[in-house]
Amino acid sequence: MSRSLNLAVIPGDGIGQEVVAQGLKVLNAVLPQDVKLQTKEYDLGAQRWHRTGETLPDAELDSLKQHDAILLGAIGDPSVPSGVLERGLLLKLRFAFDHFINLRPSKLFPNTATPLAGRPEIDFIVVREGTEGPYTGNGGSIRTGTEHEVATEVSLNTAYGVERVVRDAYERANARPRKKLTLVHKNNVLVYAGHMWKNIFDKVGQEYPEVTTDYLHVDAATIFFVTQPERFDVIVTDNLFGDILTDLAAAVTGGIGLAASGNINPTGAFPSMFEPVHGSAPDIAGQGKADPTATILSVALLLRHLGYEAEAGRIEAAVSADLAERDGSTVRTTDEIGDALAVRVAG
Amino acid sequence: MSRSLNLAVIPGDGIGQEVVAQGLKVLNAVLPQDVKLQTKEYDLGAQRWHRTGETLPDAELDSLKQHDAILLGAIGDPSVPSGVLERGLLLKLRFAFDHFINLRPSKLFPNTATPLAGRPEIDFIVVREGTEGPYTGNGGSIRTGTEHEVATEVSLNTAYGVERVVRDAYERANARPRKKLTLVHKNNVLVYAGHMWKNIFDKVGQEYPEVTTDYLHVDAATIFFVTQPERFDVIVTDNLFGDILTDLAAAVTGGIGLAASGNINPTGAFPSMFEPVHGSAPDIAGQGKADPTATILSVALLLRHLGYEAEAGRIEAAVSADLAERDGSTVRTTDEIGDALAVRVAG
Ligand SMILES: CC(C)[C@H](C(=O)O)[C@@H](O)C(=O)O
Ligand SMILES: CC(C)[C@H](C(=O)O)[C@@H](O)C(=O)O
Repeated sequence: MSRSLNLAVIPGDGIGQEVVAQGLKVLNAVLPQDVKLQTKEYDLGAQRWHRTGETLPDAELDSLKQHDAILLGAIGDPSVPSGVLERGLLLKLRFAFDHFINLRPSKLFPNTATPLAGRPEIDFIVVREGTEGPYTGNGGSIRTGTEHEVATEVSLNTAYGVERVVRDAYERANARPRKKLTLVHKNNVLVYAGHMWKNIFDKVGQEYPEVTTDYLHVDAATIFFVTQPERFDVIVTDNLFGDILTDLAAAVTGGIGLAASGNINPTGAFPSMFEPVHGSAPDIAGQGKADPTATILSVALLLRHLGYEAEAGRIEAAVSADLAERDGSTVRTTDEIGDALAVRVAG
Repeated sequence: MSRSLNLAVIPGDGIGQEVVAQGLKVLNAVLPQDVKLQTKEYDLGAQRWHRTGETLPDAELDSLKQHDAILLGAIGDPSVPSGVLERGLLLKLRFAFDHFINLRPSKLFPNTATPLAGRPEIDFIVVREGTEGPYTGNGGSIRTGTEHEVATEVSLNTAYGVERVVRDAYERANARPRKKLTLVHKNNVLVYAGHMWKNIFDKVGQEYPEVTTDYLHVDAATIFFVTQPERFDVIVTDNLFGDILTDLAAAVTGGIGLAASGNINPTGAFPSMFEPVHGSAPDIAGQGKADPTATILSVALLLRHLGYEAEAGRIEAAVSADLAERDGSTVRTTDEIGDALAVRVAG
């Protein structure tokens, strides 16, 4: 019996093209022989928008829906007004495909540079809500551009949306050796959303008696990220707080060049989407300078999501080994890093 | 001619009592002989709430209004539901007295421990908006406590409110040697509020041709806080982003025990309020373990606000000198640190 993997690829902007090429290289190298990999590339991003004014037409959205998963490089370019591609393409995908789990692991690999003194042990995952909170686009402005302008942003939160992400986080915490789950919010100020999160967190927790829990305000959490990151195992948090915390997490674990993410719909109703946490980095695009490791680790998350656990593990082990042997004095190109990892996972 | 300083003191909860006592000690020691210091203590916080159910009665608010400034220790106790004292007392004061500048300097003093390797030079100030954004208490929930609950939090932003804090930040940047101002927001997602902030930032900037400006998304800003904090001079940002960033800033500059803040109404229409960034730390309250330095530095901000520039400078110099001579092996009590600084500023 032969299996198939039907993958949508959105290289996007800037370094997106380069890093996605390496992700596919490693995917090809790691996939079992009997798996038929089919990829379809989608031309979406800044260039498309400049050419046609489109960000994500319905036909493309429908077509994307037909795939098993999506691999995305990066979206965004300074030539496009801020928000157009983010809201019209990236967030549109996350919302349309109900990616309510935005999964972002943070691990300090051996031999990687961290700005933290003392190299603490860091190995946690952030389960960021992906379809609610201040990201719903629910806001507006009146008297726009005048001195009487009023602009609002509405954070929308539902028990339905919070419970499903909280439950997923408990499951993940329960499956890890330390079994620890931290809720991060700001319930001393955002009392409506914050209390709902906390109540649901406590309620669902009763079903997971083995999971140790705690709660931190988001401001306090940032302190622990730099003073005591080893205290974290699994973190569950709101869309915006998760955005902020995962960039900080990437920074303390060797930089945004290593941070992978998955926008996951665990029900399988829609394809999940995997992407590096970093952006399109137009300043270094096309120069072979981008580190494709974050994309390659995102491919590992993709494989795990589709049930290829052993293959995912092989990519992660290859990255670990590669980083451990990296020599600060030689700078490898995007391509060279991809080649090295492809060789390792195949070997 | 004799001058007077009519100060309201709210010690508050936990270590608030202890640190405020040291703040007053140093204030007494530094004030010129001819200044008549009058203080009135207000019994507000967790104990008051337990006793009477009150957080900040109108009579007290009126009375507080009569002072030149307010010195606050810390508010909050685990025995009080999260949000009650924060919204009913601390934020009520900030909003009632229109403290639209929440000023938070971050400086890595010599000889203090930072979690960052390589001890970068850190010396920036965050000008956090204090009366708008997601802090307005504008939100609610329906079907509360059920599986159909929906909770909202509304971030309210006005051109009036944004322009005044942006202008203040330009003034501060213009007065510093590096003359650099960074706006932090998330205008690729929070497009309504974010674009208004950015437009006003750009418009006001035309009046300050000598100030170099840049813009960072809040997630990216947290990365630079740990990888390149020396790049910042003055930061202006929204209420919630400012809350998060200033805790992180405190962490990288030696900890929350040193972080001072001022809730300032520059018009003088209401008294401004000065407080350490840290909370009430009930776990160490009453043990003489709290570092009063953040409160003492807040007293310096208070003095500067009231025009006592030389005295403010003397406190800051004393703290610098004290920290430079601190010996990691001896742990001083709250009282001892206060005494040492009082001696230095008087001497
Ligand atoms: C590009 C932007 C819309 C996005 C987000 O805010 O979610 C990015 O920062 C991320 O973390 O994936
Ligand atoms: C206690 C809390 C309401 C407050 C805030 O969020 O502003 C605190 O974190 C601060 O930074 O002063």
